Amino acid sequence: PEALSGATLVVIDVLRATTTITAALAAGAKEVIPCFEIDEARRIAAELPPGTSVLGGERGGKRIDGFDLGNSPTEYTPERVAGKSVVITTTNGTKALRQCRLAAEVWLGSLTNLGSVVARISAKPTIHVVCAGTDGHITLEDVVTAGYFVLALNRLGDWTEGDSAILARVAAESCENDSARLRSNFTQSRGGHNLVELGYDADIDYAMRLDINSVAPRLELKEWRIRSA
Amino acid sequence: PEALSGATLVVIDVLRATTTITAALAAGAKEVIPCFEIDEARRIAAELPPGTSVLGGERGGKRIDGFDLGNSPTEYTPERVAGKSVVITTTNGTKALRQCRLAAEVWLGSLTNLGSVVARISAKPTIHVVCAGTDGHITLEDVVTAGYFVLALNRLGDWTEGDSAILARVAAESCENDSARLRSNFTQSRGGHNLVELGYDADIDYAMRLDINSVAPRLELKEWRIRSA
Repeated sequence: PEALSGATLVVIDVLRATTTITAALAAGAKEVIPCFEIDEARRIAAELPPGTSVLGGERGGKRIDGFDLGNSPTEYTPERVAGKSVVITTTNGTKALRQCRLAAEVWLGSLTNLGSVVARISAKPTIHVVCAGTDGHITLEDVVTAGYFVLALNRLGDWTEGDSAILARVAAESCENDSARLRSNFTQSRGGHNLVELGYDADIDYAMRLDINSVAPRLELKEWRIRSA
Repeated sequence: PEALSGATLVVIDVLRATTTITAALAAGAKEVIPCFEIDEARRIAAELPPGTSVLGGERGGKRIDGFDLGNSPTEYTPERVAGKSVVITTTNGTKALRQCRLAAEVWLGSLTNLGSVVARISAKPTIHVVCAGTDGHITLEDVVTAGYFVLALNRLGDWTEGDSAILARVAAESCENDSARLRSNFTQSRGGHNLVELGYDADIDYAMRLDINSVAPRLELKEWRIRSA
């Protein structure tokens, strides 16, 4: 948290938390409330007026018992979430947000909203792209997605890249015009492999779709709410 | 250390510790004794019979006061080191070795001895390539070099790559047949940039030379000595 203090951040958990939260806001959710624990999520949802909230998330990739929705972006349809507060808890994505609590600005990035987020941050002096990873380990799909952000920012300005930004960019360049390779990076990775095992291939296909959503989810740190900015 | 317990490791601090230690052994040094602290290095050298040791290393990239040699590979000539025990302390490389103390085997890798090290380890079941980094941060030159090891191992066998191995490999592929790009990865990195500022460009050129040395330095963990295996 201290290393990220005062900076502009883009948090990436492309399989699937930041993709799914983007989908929820694109489907008209009023806000998303990220929670670390299952009990906390249940309590927060119960405190909201009846009918105004939806409870979503996963443990081990699967929907949590008693929750309305899992962590697949396609579950978050306008019918289910429009106008609602989505209370969500996921294994890696919400943990990564906690690491960002001292930042100046926190945005949630995915391939589905790359252009929208980049448009909001491209004038900032310093940007850290934070990869959530899986169970504390680096995951290829998050780093490749981070590289897409580096590439997009480079096209809009003259940036100095840190070593890890260069690595991410090179990884993105290697699959930018090669969707089979992008898919293989997403499915062979630590995070993607789990999803394939669980039968969530369709979520991977969804997460690979560039710029299909025009929302830029921003975590409002004091209120701890994610809203479309 | 626990995560690396029992495994075969290749430690990489290509600018410059593992390149320089390789050069010292290639020049006929009897062994290299890696030390964490300057005082420890002085004490160990003083305990060896007169005329049998050479004291080398750096802090802030520069030779340490009173030491015989710095951390440039070209300083370690047969005239200076043949038959001698080289007692060495460097900022990042020797720290990385300490993280490897629970491993089964620890090899020191660089581009200058890539083939020799790969030939010794290619039959092992699991290999971790450990990047020393600079001041606790990932550095591009170490990751690119790690990627060369992944590429070389892939050519000799059928490996399953972890996510970080894939990232390193992709970085290596992007400059494998492009020496200008390799040089730019080495000079723009966190570690390389410091060396250029200090005027050590020639060390970078040396460190980029593939397979010029045929020694495979191995850290003998009980004795804490690096010898050519």
